[in-house]
Amino acid sequence: MLAQIAEKASDPAGRKIHPREVERVFGALLASSEFWRVVALSRLPVETVAEIIKALIDVGLAVQENGALRLTPGGNARARARGIVPLIERTCPGCTGRGIDLRPYAELLDQFKELVQNRPNAILEYDQGYVTPETTVARLALLAAKGDLQDKELIILGDDDLVSIAAALSGLPRRVVVLEIDPRLTDFIQTLAGTHHLAIEVYRQDLRRRLPAELCRQFDTFLTDPPETIPALELFLTRGLAALKGPCCAGYFGLTYAESSLAEWLTIQQILAGKLKVVVTDIIHNFNEYVNWDYLLESVRKDLSFVQVSPRANWYFSSMYRIETLADYDQENRDRENLALYPGENLS
Amino acid sequence: MLAQIAEKASDPAGRKIHPREVERVFGALLASSEFWRVVALSRLPVETVAEIIKALIDVGLAVQENGALRLTPGGNARARARGIVPLIERTCPGCTGRGIDLRPYAELLDQFKELVQNRPNAILEYDQGYVTPETTVARLALLAAKGDLQDKELIILGDDDLVSIAAALSGLPRRVVVLEIDPRLTDFIQTLAGTHHLAIEVYRQDLRRRLPAELCRQFDTFLTDPPETIPALELFLTRGLAALKGPCCAGYFGLTYAESSLAEWLTIQQILAGKLKVVVTDIIHNFNEYVNWDYLLESVRKDLSFVQVSPRANWYFSSMYRIETLADYDQENRDRENLALYPGENLS
Repeated sequence: MLAQIAEKASDPAGRKIHPREVERVFGALLASSEFWRVVALSRLPVETVAEIIKALIDVGLAVQENGALRLTPGGNARARARGIVPLIERTCPGCTGRGIDLRPYAELLDQFKELVQNRPNAILEYDQGYVTPETTVARLALLAAKGDLQDKELIILGDDDLVSIAAALSGLPRRVVVLEIDPRLTDFIQTLAGTHHLAIEVYRQDLRRRLPAELCRQFDTFLTDPPETIPALELFLTRGLAALKGPCCAGYFGLTYAESSLAEWLTIQQILAGKLKVVVTDIIHNFNEYVNWDYLLESVRKDLSFVQVSPRANWYFSSMYRIETLADYDQENRDRENLALYPGENLS
Repeated sequence: MLAQIAEKASDPAGRKIHPREVERVFGALLASSEFWRVVALSRLPVETVAEIIKALIDVGLAVQENGALRLTPGGNARARARGIVPLIERTCPGCTGRGIDLRPYAELLDQFKELVQNRPNAILEYDQGYVTPETTVARLALLAAKGDLQDKELIILGDDDLVSIAAALSGLPRRVVVLEIDPRLTDFIQTLAGTHHLAIEVYRQDLRRRLPAELCRQFDTFLTDPPETIPALELFLTRGLAALKGPCCAGYFGLTYAESSLAEWLTIQQILAGKLKVVVTDIIHNFNEYVNWDYLLESVRKDLSFVQVSPRANWYFSSMYRIETLADYDQENRDRENLALYPGENLS
């Protein structure tokens, strides 16, 4: 039965869906009636979950009413027969699963929230979507715990999350540099930095252009949150690596299940291990929690009414990767101006 | 200055030590006077930390008295001048950094502790060293949170941690199988299972022998904690993969900084991504906490008095890797009888 649904949900031209993925969506549907929450719980791409649910509805194992999903009696019976249980994440309530103690950062969090109240909205043009203030501060706490922040030189490649503001506010890093393509953000950061005497160097830069020479091999730590395509991820990581001083430096970036399949995760890991020759030291599940953004429903399938429902709670999370450089990692730094990075770009 | 110490500490024939590694040991020495704690904080191999401290003592930047280490005034001045700060891990006190809520497992933990009171000691012959009962139960909580435990078939490759007992006690998995080389452990597990009516199938097996045919492609999840050499890690992972049913199954294993350098971590990641073609979904720092074992001081350097000090608290931790199988992962299963796995083996 799962095999038939997997077959039905698979794109004939594209990716095959495995029966165990159907099973996982079943488990998520036993725990939530909301599409976006089901996506988060099933740890599968949005598109995959949508196709599986569509197939479940088509064969009468699930129904949707006003956008709320549930298994039919038949669906429940199949789930029970297969021993499928509700997918429930039991994350630590103290740290929401990040593993980091944020209490020493309570004051920083308050200050940061105060300062960024009027931040620019996330826009589709640059594939934006920013994290909660708690996540921004948790990132700093993580960097600090690893010895990658205090008295270190930090570069942030793309900063709609405004990590630079929190980093400078913390007073911990020796230097904070931001590269950002969106002039609304470079302006916002520069204005805040000016008003509050925060030492942040802001460059307006399209990362397809190579890193300015004065920023190469200057940093202890980079942080980035690239658009989730393999070329964009590789590009942003390459720029981060070019900015690092040498071996034993660290980089941080996020990767989701919602946008990247595990096959794409594997490709990224092959690039990291095989090509860039950097080691992954940590992958922290759901470390980054994103604030729901305005353009979500415009950017997803319009033919499925259960998808066209505004999420009630934050549902988009990413795992935090920490990488560390070794003796002979890749330090290439060349222009890549013909690379498509953002939705709807025409680079001809 | 750091560069000179790094040079001095490097093995002329072996691994080069980087100045930033010296810096990290400085940071750890600012936080602790105990060698074993310094190893844990610096996230470097025991041998590397020992060499760096030896070099620091030789040049007068550190001293040891009765096994307690401290920086000299000169050492402190150098640390300050370089902006080195104490390495302090701020892990969440609720979950000791694992990110998992253990409260639903409190009763299981009590039962497990009660049952395993008379467990066999860890012995050098099989490179043993078992985790705390909290860790054993946290492993089950992690598997459960990922959907890899309840109603699943679980195989454990090497079980001095007695995960099989806790797993069967929990009543969650559909099947629990243990492969273990040490007859003291197979006896212990079988006796407990008999007394307490726990459904555990125990095989006495040297993992150099290929997996019995009846165990191939039978399991949803494997768990293993291999000796930390590249061949042993690859062997244990290969056996685990051969036991899995197919794509979308999961494996768990531990890897330390104390025994494996980051260069070795990278090699493992190259094997996982490039050769075995499985994806890493989680790397959870210090998830596994090991109980101090009797033979530690016999197995480490005897020429350094600061090393020959019994650790006061648990100091040996490993990161927990979770891997997931994709469509075309490696499923080889052949005998590897000439592979050396354990200390002092003579396989000629």
